[in-house]
Amino acid sequence: PPYFSCTLKGDFSQMKRTHLFIAGLYLLASCRAEEGLNFPTYDGKDRVVSLTEKNFKQVLKKYDDKVAQKQFQLKEIVLELVAQVLEHKDIGFVMVDAKKEAKLAKKLGFDEEGSLYVLKGDRTIEFDGEFAADVLVEFLLDLIEDPVEIINSKLEVQAFERIEDQIKLIGFFKSEESEYYKAFEEAAEHFQPYIKFFATFDKGVAKKLSLKMNEVDFYEPFMDEPIAIPDKPYTEEELVEFVKEHQRPTLRRLRPEDMFETWEDDLNGIHIVAFAERSDPDGYEFLEILKQVARDNTDNPDLSIVWIDPDDFPLLVAYWEKTFKIDLFKPQIGVVNVTDADSVWMEIPDDDDLPTAEELEDWIEDVLSGKINTEDDDNEEGDDGDDDEDDDD
Amino acid sequence: PPYFSCTLKGDFSQMKRTHLFIAGLYLLASCRAEEGLNFPTYDGKDRVVSLTEKNFKQVLKKYDDKVAQKQFQLKEIVLELVAQVLEHKDIGFVMVDAKKEAKLAKKLGFDEEGSLYVLKGDRTIEFDGEFAADVLVEFLLDLIEDPVEIINSKLEVQAFERIEDQIKLIGFFKSEESEYYKAFEEAAEHFQPYIKFFATFDKGVAKKLSLKMNEVDFYEPFMDEPIAIPDKPYTEEELVEFVKEHQRPTLRRLRPEDMFETWEDDLNGIHIVAFAERSDPDGYEFLEILKQVARDNTDNPDLSIVWIDPDDFPLLVAYWEKTFKIDLFKPQIGVVNVTDADSVWMEIPDDDDLPTAEELEDWIEDVLSGKINTEDDDNEEGDDGDDDEDDDD
Repeated sequence: PPYFSCTLKGDFSQMKRTHLFIAGLYLLASCRAEEGLNFPTYDGKDRVVSLTEKNFKQVLKKYDDKVAQKQFQLKEIVLELVAQVLEHKDIGFVMVDAKKEAKLAKKLGFDEEGSLYVLKGDRTIEFDGEFAADVLVEFLLDLIEDPVEIINSKLEVQAFERIEDQIKLIGFFKSEESEYYKAFEEAAEHFQPYIKFFATFDKGVAKKLSLKMNEVDFYEPFMDEPIAIPDKPYTEEELVEFVKEHQRPTLRRLRPEDMFETWEDDLNGIHIVAFAERSDPDGYEFLEILKQVARDNTDNPDLSIVWIDPDDFPLLVAYWEKTFKIDLFKPQIGVVNVTDADSVWMEIPDDDDLPTAEELEDWIEDVLSGKINTEDDDNEEGDDGDDDEDDDD
Repeated sequence: PPYFSCTLKGDFSQMKRTHLFIAGLYLLASCRAEEGLNFPTYDGKDRVVSLTEKNFKQVLKKYDDKVAQKQFQLKEIVLELVAQVLEHKDIGFVMVDAKKEAKLAKKLGFDEEGSLYVLKGDRTIEFDGEFAADVLVEFLLDLIEDPVEIINSKLEVQAFERIEDQIKLIGFFKSEESEYYKAFEEAAEHFQPYIKFFATFDKGVAKKLSLKMNEVDFYEPFMDEPIAIPDKPYTEEELVEFVKEHQRPTLRRLRPEDMFETWEDDLNGIHIVAFAERSDPDGYEFLEILKQVARDNTDNPDLSIVWIDPDDFPLLVAYWEKTFKIDLFKPQIGVVNVTDADSVWMEIPDDDDLPTAEELEDWIEDVLSGKINTEDDDNEEGDDGDDDEDDDD
């Protein structure tokens, strides 16, 4: 049930009855070690000017001259808004100063400065996604839902089958009372809300999905066929271990809710990154080709392509275009060094003539062998200084 | 090309060379006449408390006691962030005080207080969507793309066919130089970025879509078969008129980018609203049933169901649940009075046993005939006061 009856009033002992508890670790400057995903935060510069009829011309003339001093703690505002929106869901919100309260932070299991933690029962879940009110609210709402979704009908099987861009698991059990279902449910809680767990108690549904009793199937993103987890029935620990081992797919979508975790999971300091806007015909076509490449290479443990749909990250598009020197109105694939965001991109001269799966595989092979790398072109560079602002007019 | 070479410096005459120009009409309290879509704005109340080891217990105890005074002009911050992100795209941003600068506002064609306007060439486009940085940035990026998307290949046809939840048009023309293509392109600009226009110059693609030369097909959302716009070839005005006449579909998705426009387009003061989370099996099943109902009733001009996917509006979920007294973890359908957000909802006792298309049609018939309405249950109400905050502990 989505509602809870108690609120965080009265005394400390009631804390246990609060379902979720959000804590932010803050410090003045955030210091992530890796590059490539810098969300813009308001830099205090005043770009929205007040326009009056009198100063209309003047304002346009001096458009970028005015620099304001004000600084807003935007992160705090986001948390305030989230707290406000979820006020009736009984979720507590606190901020912990990482410097001043080092001891308390350690005690609560908060180890990364600038991070956000959620306490749910005895679990501490790190939120490693985009720090935006809508993303955070959706994350929290997903967290208070049931950890396992039950599939009952043919139309629901269709819904299950349509999910292709994320890991999903489905198990067939006798009933909700089955001890194996309970182990499955416990395992699901370890990954909620990042990985979706489904179950069915219906023979017809199980047959349609070729599931045997107490079997759990693991679906890698974008693959047609699942892997049946071996040696059923399973304990909670066996399920958790299997998922952790298979958690890095050959092709994965960067998602706002765990983008930083994905980005930190690089292979030898690099990511192969593909930009494709799925709602755009060119982008759709490119993604289909990528899927083909992923299916052909699913057994290669050294390959994990990060697919980014620019539609999911409107605020990052300009930053990426500037940092990577590419045009994101077209599909792109490249290698990014996560330490300095240095990158090289495949030449796609015409978006009406995208590379074939074979051409992409050749290119990827050159990347994995080091033949294509981010260092070779570095002598060409030199002038990405801030020469776009001169105040001497 | 997404980049433009000039910036808004120097003198006023350069303004014409700026591609987009954003203006916000602001006043202290926003006063929309209709209810049902109130986005939360930060109310200045302090919910994120600073936690120290010392006051840990105390803070939890007095959790909701502290009320702060600070007020942030969040709208301005959003605009600042958008301006910052799009700085290199040459888009100018201004704010116009609706009270003090009434004359100027009128001159520029800004007629709604609290609204945001974009000047693109000689068009003034009102942004009538969610006032959030990501939505606004995506809106603006869509606005600087080409107004017509070209379909060249079979995979691109597949991408085109996958778009089902919004209006789309596609035309077949000889070439980009064709005068009929040019009329189509001009027509597209009237609706950019809200309605998508596609074109092909390829005979194979045209054959696959059963398009004759110079013909334009109009696809209503969720319908399998398009309507061929009659009397080809068309002028720009004929195309614009046809789209305007067919703009209200039988089933439409509420989109962040034009949610307020959709909400204002009510029928006799009410909306039939369906909540269904597409990524959830129950929600998917319910949406499939809704589509069936829409297809069966596409010729009924009095029917336009607004489908809301709660995933698109995480910040509104709690507000809707409270206002409509429903549980949004399950599919819902109801009638909402847009003047006071009064509503009645169909009883769906079990989300494993959703209503059939026939049952839904009967219910809708009762709504359209007035047999089911938002007034009948009003004597039952009475206690939705703010009794959830008592500071006397």
